[in-house]
Amino acid sequence: MAPDRVTLQEVARRAGVSRTTASFVLTGRRDMRISADAEERVLRAARELNYRPNLMARGLRTRVSQTIGLVSDTVATEPFAGEIVRGAVSTALLNDRLLFMGETEGDGELEKRVVRDMLDRGVDGFLYAAMYTLEAHPPAALRGHPLVLLNCLTANPRTPAVVPDEQAAGHAAARTLLEAGHREHIHVVGETVPHVFASRERLAGIGAALSAERLELAGTIRCMWWPQYAYQAVRQFLADGARATGLICLNDRIALGAYQAIQEAGLRIPDDVSIVSFDDSDLASWLRPQLTSIAIPHFELGRRAVELLLAGERDAGVERIPMPVRRRASVGPPAAS
Amino acid sequence: MAPDRVTLQEVARRAGVSRTTASFVLTGRRDMRISADAEERVLRAARELNYRPNLMARGLRTRVSQTIGLVSDTVATEPFAGEIVRGAVSTALLNDRLLFMGETEGDGELEKRVVRDMLDRGVDGFLYAAMYTLEAHPPAALRGHPLVLLNCLTANPRTPAVVPDEQAAGHAAARTLLEAGHREHIHVVGETVPHVFASRERLAGIGAALSAERLELAGTIRCMWWPQYAYQAVRQFLADGARATGLICLNDRIALGAYQAIQEAGLRIPDDVSIVSFDDSDLASWLRPQLTSIAIPHFELGRRAVELLLAGERDAGVERIPMPVRRRASVGPPAAS
Repeated sequence: MAPDRVTLQEVARRAGVSRTTASFVLTGRRDMRISADAEERVLRAARELNYRPNLMARGLRTRVSQTIGLVSDTVATEPFAGEIVRGAVSTALLNDRLLFMGETEGDGELEKRVVRDMLDRGVDGFLYAAMYTLEAHPPAALRGHPLVLLNCLTANPRTPAVVPDEQAAGHAAARTLLEAGHREHIHVVGETVPHVFASRERLAGIGAALSAERLELAGTIRCMWWPQYAYQAVRQFLADGARATGLICLNDRIALGAYQAIQEAGLRIPDDVSIVSFDDSDLASWLRPQLTSIAIPHFELGRRAVELLLAGERDAGVERIPMPVRRRASVGPPAAS
Repeated sequence: MAPDRVTLQEVARRAGVSRTTASFVLTGRRDMRISADAEERVLRAARELNYRPNLMARGLRTRVSQTIGLVSDTVATEPFAGEIVRGAVSTALLNDRLLFMGETEGDGELEKRVVRDMLDRGVDGFLYAAMYTLEAHPPAALRGHPLVLLNCLTANPRTPAVVPDEQAAGHAAARTLLEAGHREHIHVVGETVPHVFASRERLAGIGAALSAERLELAGTIRCMWWPQYAYQAVRQFLADGARATGLICLNDRIALGAYQAIQEAGLRIPDDVSIVSFDDSDLASWLRPQLTSIAIPHFELGRRAVELLLAGERDAGVERIPMPVRRRASVGPPAAS
């Protein structure tokens, strides 16, 4: 549609100034001293040549484009996952980027619109974030744009992605009990759902740690990952007269329910039952006794995702962030049987 | 600096089309049917008149400026306060706005930079948000720009602000105990800090509700607003043989500590002690029995702040958002004394 454009170089040449000077004059920048005479020559040359700079395109490139779009399902709602946002925002700021937030609650149409709106505003690239670690399906609109998956994975293993190292965490949880002397009566508490990343990987790690000692899980106390279900399941387990001296709860909420059932039954933690958990949410340090838990490194996930995006490598694949063990008072040696 | 510009109206007149048609042609929009002939006439008129649209300025006005800047201390880190962000982001999207996130952890220099960066990117206006309700000092750089205070207040009562109605919440908390039959032995648990908005307003509301019945607080069990301090304070209170049949905990974390001390002492909730609290965090429904709590309307705060910003009124003053009572199982009639 547009006729061939006169270039900035041609304007500068006609005005007898450098391309930089011409650029500064035509963009109205005042952070370089330019003589009134040079300014006048540049403006006249631009008029005479009918110079029509593509100001919008340049604006997007040199100023407005210093942004990153964070598209998430509902990352900011999940209590401690707000740390993901904080890691991303602060790392973006450190690198002179601002962050657009777009939450879509998984709505496909909304995702499309948010991506389009962000592209309209010239974002440099995208983070696609999930509330909890999962296999995600980023909007098709993101294809072809710089993208880092944050706390999620896709079928393509080369897409840059940052996830917690859940398998190593499972291994560390089991090792925590083993090192305290537990060998038998170790149970997992929680529904074990193969398609849920954290569940599958944590269990694989737990299994590997036990196998290495030629041990096996004594069993699984199945329940959904919420306090009330864990309370009911563990209460039933104890009422049935079953024996567990070491519980690996698949998250802190489950551990809360387990605490409630165990303490209601008059048993003591860790004297009668040792408990180790995952997430290291606020809850872990609020329980009595305080709960040993393997932390999800939320801040670090956000930080690394921005770093990977800015590094610009397109086939970096999956980076697994270590999950630190927060040792507290809920693990002790097993009670004599 | 720039010579007088040819206006879009002049281009349209020369081309014999409406101003809207001229605008659509020159901005390359394709969402309105324009004949090839009209398009050609507009382009020719623009060339002949040496029409040089202020593309950047227009871009900022019609596309890039559809953004809102959210500057906060650390709103996304506070567990449930992420809902504030979700309320703001989703309301922004509903109104075709994107949201920039800037978290500054209260660092003055960083605040200045974030505000400047957002202005460079043409934000329409700002939300200045606090993690918990407080008297804030928004960066001077925000002065003169459209601004709504989100979950905070300043010395100027006319600045548009959205805060939870904490005084009404205090009133509702006390009414909840009064309506269950409690008259005496009502204690507040928590440090009462006059300069903390929630503390001051909740206590004022509690006092008003009791005064209306010619009653008074039996006392205050002082502790910092965290479970471990509340546990210690309530345990000491009970060990001293003091009697409390109704506790108003100043937040859910305090309630958790109170539960721990009460249940450890062999007392039952609500049979021996009724408890009402504030915040309605996840914890409230996880405790056994579930905790009656007055909810902070986080999502609603974020939503209203965006709406007020888009409404554009500069002297709207403070809007107080109702805090709903979530009635659960922790309140019952007082034990016979």
